[in-house]
Amino acid sequence: MFTSYANGVMNRPTALTDVAHTNVRFDEAFVLDCGTALPGHTVAFRTYGTLNSARSNAVLVCHALTGDQYVAEQSPVTGKPGWWDQVVGPGRPVDTDRFFVIGVNVLGGCMGSTGARSEKADGSGEPWGTDFPPVTIRDMVRAQKQLIEYLGIDRLFAVIGGSMGGMQVLQWAASYPDSVFAALPIATAAYHSAQNIAFNEVGRQAIFADPNWNNGQYWRDGRIPARGLAVARMCAHITYLSEEALTRKFGRRLQSARKDSAEVLNLFGEMFEVESYLRHQGSTFVQRFDANAYLTITRACDYFDLAADYGGDLADAFRGTRTRFLLASFSSDWLYPTPESRSIARALNRAGANVSFVEFPTDKGHDAFLLDEPDFHRTLAGFLRGCAMHAGLPV
Amino acid sequence: MFTSYANGVMNRPTALTDVAHTNVRFDEAFVLDCGTALPGHTVAFRTYGTLNSARSNAVLVCHALTGDQYVAEQSPVTGKPGWWDQVVGPGRPVDTDRFFVIGVNVLGGCMGSTGARSEKADGSGEPWGTDFPPVTIRDMVRAQKQLIEYLGIDRLFAVIGGSMGGMQVLQWAASYPDSVFAALPIATAAYHSAQNIAFNEVGRQAIFADPNWNNGQYWRDGRIPARGLAVARMCAHITYLSEEALTRKFGRRLQSARKDSAEVLNLFGEMFEVESYLRHQGSTFVQRFDANAYLTITRACDYFDLAADYGGDLADAFRGTRTRFLLASFSSDWLYPTPESRSIARALNRAGANVSFVEFPTDKGHDAFLLDEPDFHRTLAGFLRGCAMHAGLPV
Repeated sequence: MFTSYANGVMNRPTALTDVAHTNVRFDEAFVLDCGTALPGHTVAFRTYGTLNSARSNAVLVCHALTGDQYVAEQSPVTGKPGWWDQVVGPGRPVDTDRFFVIGVNVLGGCMGSTGARSEKADGSGEPWGTDFPPVTIRDMVRAQKQLIEYLGIDRLFAVIGGSMGGMQVLQWAASYPDSVFAALPIATAAYHSAQNIAFNEVGRQAIFADPNWNNGQYWRDGRIPARGLAVARMCAHITYLSEEALTRKFGRRLQSARKDSAEVLNLFGEMFEVESYLRHQGSTFVQRFDANAYLTITRACDYFDLAADYGGDLADAFRGTRTRFLLASFSSDWLYPTPESRSIARALNRAGANVSFVEFPTDKGHDAFLLDEPDFHRTLAGFLRGCAMHAGLPV
Repeated sequence: MFTSYANGVMNRPTALTDVAHTNVRFDEAFVLDCGTALPGHTVAFRTYGTLNSARSNAVLVCHALTGDQYVAEQSPVTGKPGWWDQVVGPGRPVDTDRFFVIGVNVLGGCMGSTGARSEKADGSGEPWGTDFPPVTIRDMVRAQKQLIEYLGIDRLFAVIGGSMGGMQVLQWAASYPDSVFAALPIATAAYHSAQNIAFNEVGRQAIFADPNWNNGQYWRDGRIPARGLAVARMCAHITYLSEEALTRKFGRRLQSARKDSAEVLNLFGEMFEVESYLRHQGSTFVQRFDANAYLTITRACDYFDLAADYGGDLADAFRGTRTRFLLASFSSDWLYPTPESRSIARALNRAGANVSFVEFPTDKGHDAFLLDEPDFHRTLAGFLRGCAMHAGLPV
C-alpha cells in the first residue's frame, strides 16, 4: 500500500522515497474538514510493547511538526535513534514493558501516511503535490481514531505529545473524551498565535522562493526545493531554542569557513559556529522531509484554534470530560510559552476536569520536551503510574 | 560622484538606481578593518537645521540596518516621510530649530555611500557585488568621522541612533571620546548574540537560495534576488515586533486570499492578516534595498563586539570618557532586550562615566524606537536640554 515517487526521480537520498512503512489502508471515503473527500487513506504506524488482553494499556504518541511514527526505534530514513527514546521504551516514563505504545504518522505527513507525496486519486500516477487538500489537526486525529479502532482499541489509556503533538492530544480529548483515559499535552497551545503563524509563513515563502519549487510540482524536474526548505527549517529551528541555549551552545565562537559561495562574505575567512549549526540543521532536514508536506502541516497548525470550534470558550471543548490531564510547559519555551498552557489549565478547571499543570524550569527552550529533562520525565512517570492505578492497570 | 548600476539593467523601480544622493567623495585610500584598502569612498548624507558659528550644535543621527540618511524628510526612493520624523524636526526632541542634524548613509549601504552597488575599482565599470570587502561598525564610524571633519566639526554635540545605529553611537563614544559630547545609544547592544546572528544567517541563506542570486552578480541578468530578500526581510521583521504587538495588530484574523501560486494552500480561500502584512513588508522592501548591501550590513552587525576590541571588558572601551550617555531600552524588545542595555550601563558605571539609563514600558517591541512613544520622546528632549546647558548651548 505504500505510495512513493518513482525511483530515481528525486535528487535526495533514496531513503525517504524507498522505505516501506508499516501501514493500514482505509478504503472508504474520508471527508476532510475543508469538504474535500479523499478516496480512502493510508495510516503509517509503529507499535512497541504488548497490548494486554483487556486492550486497556494502549498509549498513543502524537508527533510534532516534523516528527514521525518512529518514536522508540531507529528511523529507517535517517538511521538515528527514535525521536523520543528518552521518554518511550523499557523502563522509561512511557514504559513499553507495561504499555502498548503506538506511534503514528499524521495525515498529510511524508512518512507513509497519505499526504502530498502520495499518489493522486485521478489515475495519473503522479503525486498530489500542492493539489493535496488542506488538512486540520482534527482531520489528523480522526485518521488516528480509525487506526485505533482498526487495532481493536475502544479506549486509549493515554494520548501524549509535545508541540503539534500536544495539539492532537487536546483535539483527541475534545473529540473523543470517552476514548481517552489520560491526556498529556506538552509544550503546546490551544491555538496558533500571530507570531507562530508569522514564523510559519516565512518558512512557506522560503519554499515558494526556491528555484526548484516549480509550483509544487518539483518531482517533474527531478529536483527538490532543498534550499528553500532548508531556510524554512533554519528559521523554525531558532524558535525551538532559547536565547540562553544558543548562547550556551555557541555564543560568539568562530570557526574556519569552508570555501563555498555562501561563505565568501565572512570577515577573516571565519564564520560563527551558530551559522554552521543552522546550516547543518537545514541541510540534513531536506534529506528527510518533503516540502509539500511541510506546507500542509504548518498550515494545519496555523488553522488550529480549538476554542473557535466550540463557540469561543475553550472550556466548552472539555465540558463533562472524565479524562485526566497533565499539562507540561518549559520556562524558556518562547514558541508555546507557559501562559498558553496555563490558559488551557484554566479552561480545564472551568470545565471541571481533573488537571495537573507543571512548568519545568529549563534554559533549553521549546526543544526541552525532546531532551534530557529528569524532572519532566519523573513527572510523566508518576502521573502515568497514578492514572494506571485509577484505570485498574497493574502498576 | 554618484555611482549607480547602468540604467534599465535592474528590474526594480528606477528609484533605487537613479536617485542622485547628496554626497562627498574622499579620494585617499580607506583601509578597512579586514585589511582591504578602498581607493577612496563616498559618503552620502543630508543635513537639517543650521550649524551655529561655534560649530558646536551638530547632532549626528546613525541609522539602523535598513535605514538611510533621509531622517527628517521624504525619501526620494520610497516617497515616504523621513524614518525618524517623530524624533527629528522643528520642535521635536532633536530640534532642528536648535541643532544642526546630520543624517548619513553607512559605508556598505545602498543609498549613495560606497558599498556593493558602487562601481568596482578595477576599471571594469561593474559594481562590486559580493567582491565588496566586509566592513565593520568601526569602519562605518571612521567614514562618518571623515564626513564630520569635512563639515568642519571638531566635536559633535550628540550622536544618536537606535538598533544598529546605537552600535555606531557606542563605537563613536569609544573611538572618538573627545568628539562626542553626548551619546544616545537606543534599543541596542554592545555585541550581537548567538540568536541575533542566527536570525541574520537565515536571511542571508534566503538570499543565497534565490534563483536570481547568481553568486551575487544578479545585475548581469537584469534580475534581483527579490524573493530571497523578501524572505530575509519577513524573518527580520518578526524580530522587530513583540508577540503582543503582533497579536494586537492581527491576532488570528482572516482575510480573503488573492489567487496566486503562493496562496493555493490556504484553507477555505482565506489567509491570516499577519501573513498578508509580512508579504507586504517583504515586497516593498526589495524595491528600496540591495541584496548585497543587506549581506554587508548584517555581517557588520554580527561581527560587532565592542568589548572584544578592548581586551574583553566593555568598561575599558570608555575609561576616562567625559561623554554624557543616555541609554534607552524598550520592555518588549526581544531583539536587543533590556539586559543588553543594562550591561552597557554597568560598564559605563565601572568606567566612571556619566550615564542615564531608562527602560520604557511598551508592548511595541524593538520597533518602538521608531514609533510614537511620548515618554521616550520627552526623555530624549529633556536629556538633550540638560546636555545643551552643560555644553553652553542656548536652551
